[in-house]
Amino acid sequence: MTRERIYLFDTTLRDGAQTAGVDFTLADKMAVATMLDRLGVDYVEGGYPGANPTDTAFFSENRTTRATFVAFGMTKRAGRSVENDAGLQGVLQAKAAACCFVGKSWDFHVVHALGITLEENIEQIRETVAAAIAAGREAMIDCEHFFDGYKANPDYALACAKAAYDAGARWVVLCDTNGGTTPDEVTAIVAKAKAVVPGANLGIHAHDDMGLAVANSLAAVDAGARQIQGTLNGLGERCGNANLATLIPSLKLKPDYAERFEIGVSDEGLATLTQLSRAFDELLNRPSNRHAPYVGANAFATKAGIHASAILKDPRTYEHVAPESVGNHRRLLVSDQGGKSNLVSELARIGVEVDKTDPRLDRLLAEVKRREAEGYAYEGADASFALLANRALGRVPDFFTIESFRVMVERRHNALGELVTMSEAVVKLTVDGETLITAAEGNGPINALDVALRKDLGRYQPYIADLRLTDYKVRILNGGTEAVTRVLIESTDGGGVVWTTVGVSPNIIDASFEALVDSLTYKLLKAGAPAP
Amino acid sequence: MTRERIYLFDTTLRDGAQTAGVDFTLADKMAVATMLDRLGVDYVEGGYPGANPTDTAFFSENRTTRATFVAFGMTKRAGRSVENDAGLQGVLQAKAAACCFVGKSWDFHVVHALGITLEENIEQIRETVAAAIAAGREAMIDCEHFFDGYKANPDYALACAKAAYDAGARWVVLCDTNGGTTPDEVTAIVAKAKAVVPGANLGIHAHDDMGLAVANSLAAVDAGARQIQGTLNGLGERCGNANLATLIPSLKLKPDYAERFEIGVSDEGLATLTQLSRAFDELLNRPSNRHAPYVGANAFATKAGIHASAILKDPRTYEHVAPESVGNHRRLLVSDQGGKSNLVSELARIGVEVDKTDPRLDRLLAEVKRREAEGYAYEGADASFALLANRALGRVPDFFTIESFRVMVERRHNALGELVTMSEAVVKLTVDGETLITAAEGNGPINALDVALRKDLGRYQPYIADLRLTDYKVRILNGGTEAVTRVLIESTDGGGVVWTTVGVSPNIIDASFEALVDSLTYKLLKAGAPAP
Repeated sequence: MTRERIYLFDTTLRDGAQTAGVDFTLADKMAVATMLDRLGVDYVEGGYPGANPTDTAFFSENRTTRATFVAFGMTKRAGRSVENDAGLQGVLQAKAAACCFVGKSWDFHVVHALGITLEENIEQIRETVAAAIAAGREAMIDCEHFFDGYKANPDYALACAKAAYDAGARWVVLCDTNGGTTPDEVTAIVAKAKAVVPGANLGIHAHDDMGLAVANSLAAVDAGARQIQGTLNGLGERCGNANLATLIPSLKLKPDYAERFEIGVSDEGLATLTQLSRAFDELLNRPSNRHAPYVGANAFATKAGIHASAILKDPRTYEHVAPESVGNHRRLLVSDQGGKSNLVSELARIGVEVDKTDPRLDRLLAEVKRREAEGYAYEGADASFALLANRALGRVPDFFTIESFRVMVERRHNALGELVTMSEAVVKLTVDGETLITAAEGNGPINALDVALRKDLGRYQPYIADLRLTDYKVRILNGGTEAVTRVLIESTDGGGVVWTTVGVSPNIIDASFEALVDSLTYKLLKAGAPAP
Repeated sequence: MTRERIYLFDTTLRDGAQTAGVDFTLADKMAVATMLDRLGVDYVEGGYPGANPTDTAFFSENRTTRATFVAFGMTKRAGRSVENDAGLQGVLQAKAAACCFVGKSWDFHVVHALGITLEENIEQIRETVAAAIAAGREAMIDCEHFFDGYKANPDYALACAKAAYDAGARWVVLCDTNGGTTPDEVTAIVAKAKAVVPGANLGIHAHDDMGLAVANSLAAVDAGARQIQGTLNGLGERCGNANLATLIPSLKLKPDYAERFEIGVSDEGLATLTQLSRAFDELLNRPSNRHAPYVGANAFATKAGIHASAILKDPRTYEHVAPESVGNHRRLLVSDQGGKSNLVSELARIGVEVDKTDPRLDRLLAEVKRREAEGYAYEGADASFALLANRALGRVPDFFTIESFRVMVERRHNALGELVTMSEAVVKLTVDGETLITAAEGNGPINALDVALRKDLGRYQPYIADLRLTDYKVRILNGGTEAVTRVLIESTDGGGVVWTTVGVSPNIIDASFEALVDSLTYKLLKAGAPAP
């Protein structure tokens, strides 16, 4: 069976750069172009040469190997020749094999924003396409506001699309610039455009202002569009553009699409998608969306016990695709909601082997439930969960015993009359029958406690030398300062392993101390420290 | 023109509670039910009475006023009578006017997961609906895996839906449990279900595993469904459920839907949506999605200069709906001038009158920007923002001066050998030239400081007598215990007014104290306390 080709056009580096708070450097742009090229998209739009020094530098050479590198720009301005339009010339001289020009297709914008006649706008589209072809470039026109324009004046919107096509544009891209169009409208309007742009020459550019960018892209494909424009992780102005990290797996894995269409991303490329999506967020220095379709950390996470036991029997019962196909993996969460199946499979995952019929499992499950009712949350605190489980199985030695601790925070004027705050902690503990007292200062009470606690652990000190705190999170579980506090602490060591521990108490210092002690104990257990 | 009614069914407290990392307390559940009830949803599903102590306690009384309160449960188990099925009885005895039962409709699950015959499963659906009706409850059946079930065995899936309807279920809800169904499939399959469940009795329950939950919900409505199940901010297992905060504005504002359908949310309710969405994230102590459709901080933010100037001429050029309709507002990220207009409009909103040409405004704007770069967030701390603005305008007297404070937290064994933690604070301040020293104990360091600070404020004591802390939130702005801590404190007084203050410091105690002092000062200002 012959499948039709769908072309993927990535605009992360152009429309995605309109995102509030996103500001790509030249090095960022090169890194992202390489990621996209390896993934297998067909077009990488790199920016707007001439608009700013970064984009101009980026287009000083071709930046892709497999994909077609695309320069973005505006159609020719009114009242100038192609030769005398500096903006247009900047785009045509960029080292890119293709050029994508935004052209207006909503009569209201032509008259009010550009201040030219409707026919003049069409003439500009024609001349711009012709100039790009003459310069040896693959030419594309982005019809800005195509759907809103069609609703206001269908004949004019279609005339703009037809003019681009007739002038020789390889692609005529229909843009839902404001993101306010529904899938039904997309279906109907793309079908109309297909009548004037026959063949595989229509593209779709959707925005997510109604949470419909992915659905609108698929609706356009069903109606005849063969190019999809989108961005990595749905980056883009306002609510973002169509998310390619969602569309690619759907096009490849859903029979409804995979049987009819093919794309340039291979199965091997698809299997790198989760890693690529997270690497892109790392580059943007932002946390990844844990709930993102296909690639989110929770995309294949199950909490309900009854679902978990079904998944263990046959994953297809509660998974619409195999997590491995997109490089993701299944997670069964231990929680109040979960049952014994979740517990056993989670224990296996963290390396705690135990027979399913072991009576200590029931006690452990009851203990987990009791603690979760108190405010503990083990789904995000693997290390505390491992300790709890190993303790229930009698596998955690009492490496040390905390006798007492004391923290003091004082704010006062120093000798120079400056207001300073001092935090000091004292910890008293017993190791091997020996009492050790340590004291430390810190920039806050938790920091002081952490430093004091790790200062002298007697014979165990070498095992914790490389321990280091990397994150600290606090959640108050009920309103008011008298509520219960839950603290999550993330730690790491020289080996790059990261673990998380939890503490709960009405007193934030107590809760933090509990999580600190769990982290130490976990590290000792992990490092194979001998029992006293 | 008569419009058909679409019923909104919120399952934030049931299916939303399956989200990894989400753990509703009883107080959380009550707060969320109240939010939903005020918003105008038709059904609030509160959880699964009998499944855990929180849900059982939540269903000990009716928790809604306008909306119908719904208990969730499983259909009757095989081999037991209705009377002897403890799970079913727990649901029927809950103080809820409606019951929603999950029933299987995929033959594979019936045979392999339940291990009963196909006819037995249908009989269980029938008996469960009959039992709910006999108990005086509005009965609903969630047909689990309906779309996957239909694809495997259409006749059987339809027979399950028909059995529920024939037995008297008010709603037969078609669930895309695994989230793997496309809008085209939803359209086709809902139409088939409509043939066996005529009238306005079909519901849709969509998941976002392909980023299509909103599109699938709308497709189902177009095909005849009249109830939409979803959650606030799209909370839910894996990638989440259909997002009601996206669907509600689309149903009310998009002519394609608004002309055909009506929902229970009023225009006034819609205008609270942004605030409600963010308050819900605050309750979950997670950052709001800035790119969320309609309610995100960036949903109406424009960066491109050319777009911004068009928006200033006519917002419809680049906005698909008016931001005010959902209680959001436009942000132009281009000029300092835009920043100043925002500042003046924010000041007006909190009742601070100031001329737009006042030079002190520029200093205030610079101060706000400097502080926000340090980690302060005034969007959620109106009272601290009002203090900052009034200070810049010379309108805040120095009611009192803090000289010093000291907090101590100590954990040790008491005389009975029990491990106890004691928190004590001492505050020294000056009022009217008089030095006052107060000390107090608390169940944590912040509580102790709060009590000590409010113990004796000299001549100002009467003004703060009814002040009370109602919430305390902590966010660490960078990783590690050495990072900056942001504390938000919510306070109230006898009048029921609530205000929020913010404090930022590397030291959590300092940050908390700053927010406590701001709250006191704001209360004195608000109460019209005289300057010293």
